[in-house]
Amino acid sequence: MPKQVDHRERRESIARALWTIVDRQGWARATMREVASEAGVSLGQLQHYFSSRAEMLAFAIEFAADQTSQRVAQGMATLDQPPHPRDVLRVVVVELLPLRPDARATSRMNAAYVLEAMHDPALHRQVAIGLRDGRAMIEHLIRQAVDHGQIPADRDPAIETDLVLALTGFAPLLELNVIEPHAALAAIDQHLDGLFCSSS
Amino acid sequence: MPKQVDHRERRESIARALWTIVDRQGWARATMREVASEAGVSLGQLQHYFSSRAEMLAFAIEFAADQTSQRVAQGMATLDQPPHPRDVLRVVVVELLPLRPDARATSRMNAAYVLEAMHDPALHRQVAIGLRDGRAMIEHLIRQAVDHGQIPADRDPAIETDLVLALTGFAPLLELNVIEPHAALAAIDQHLDGLFCSSS
Repeated sequence: MPKQVDHRERRESIARALWTIVDRQGWARATMREVASEAGVSLGQLQHYFSSRAEMLAFAIEFAADQTSQRVAQGMATLDQPPHPRDVLRVVVVELLPLRPDARATSRMNAAYVLEAMHDPALHRQVAIGLRDGRAMIEHLIRQAVDHGQIPADRDPAIETDLVLALTGFAPLLELNVIEPHAALAAIDQHLDGLFCSSS
Repeated sequence: MPKQVDHRERRESIARALWTIVDRQGWARATMREVASEAGVSLGQLQHYFSSRAEMLAFAIEFAADQTSQRVAQGMATLDQPPHPRDVLRVVVVELLPLRPDARATSRMNAAYVLEAMHDPALHRQVAIGLRDGRAMIEHLIRQAVDHGQIPADRDPAIETDLVLALTGFAPLLELNVIEPHAALAAIDQHLDGLFCSSS
């Protein structure tokens, strides 16, 4: 189905143009007109792919989440098989942080739409569902590791999940050069070392 | 000097009007004209207090930081004297999170200006200096606690400082109802319990 592939590709290139504008000038400037201009298409062509700004934003957010999932999957492929859950959690957290150019683009998109979601109910729903799914995935991993004796049985999986999620709080600190990438990685490693049994 | 007090008060009430707009509609809508209208003053009167939008934003950010410091000081006053450093860190982290209406307003301001700072060099400098000062204050507390035997001597104060700062990563998760306030507080308590010696 080459036509459908082309449609998807065009939508993705429009989403990337949107990210560029959000990254450079902020979310409010990401109008249909500006995005069309950045993507090198006419406003009419853009409207062929997205009937509204809301639809374009929703797609760009979904695409950012897909890109993050793909980076996580690529990171997982480099691990020993089967991977140790500590290494899986490390890949997930690291890919959510702005440590490499592609992760930086999606991390900024995330920061922008989380903020936007605070005053936009539809976006709030979309963002909250995505974050709750991510949280559930991490909690599942942690519960499994407890069951397998890789995390001490006296740890509370819900609290440990939230503390792993808190590590994404390094994103703004990295963006503003308040902490260096090597320091964020050292802190993540120390936190994960403290979570898992040293003998596992 | 009643005139100077009045000047300061008027600037603060303008800053609060700015926060209201940022909270409701986002940063981009916080123009001089919108803020004047929200504050119930004319654009000319607003310009008497702030000669530019940048000056107004810089003041609003400083005022938000002052308000946070005041809430921290109030929280400290309720602690045993001299306070245990664990309790001091808890007050600092909790006051940075959107758990109460006043903290919620300043936390949203923080999120908005961190994002804005990514494309605005002057704001970037101001925000980064504020965050580095906050980080230095926390590291000083942690080093003192290590010196006093309240935190095990084998802990790295720089890494522990970054892990305490990461707890502010709960802010967007609380805003989007991905985690509940009681869960954030339980995670903060568990993290601080793990940092300090249980016998101290």
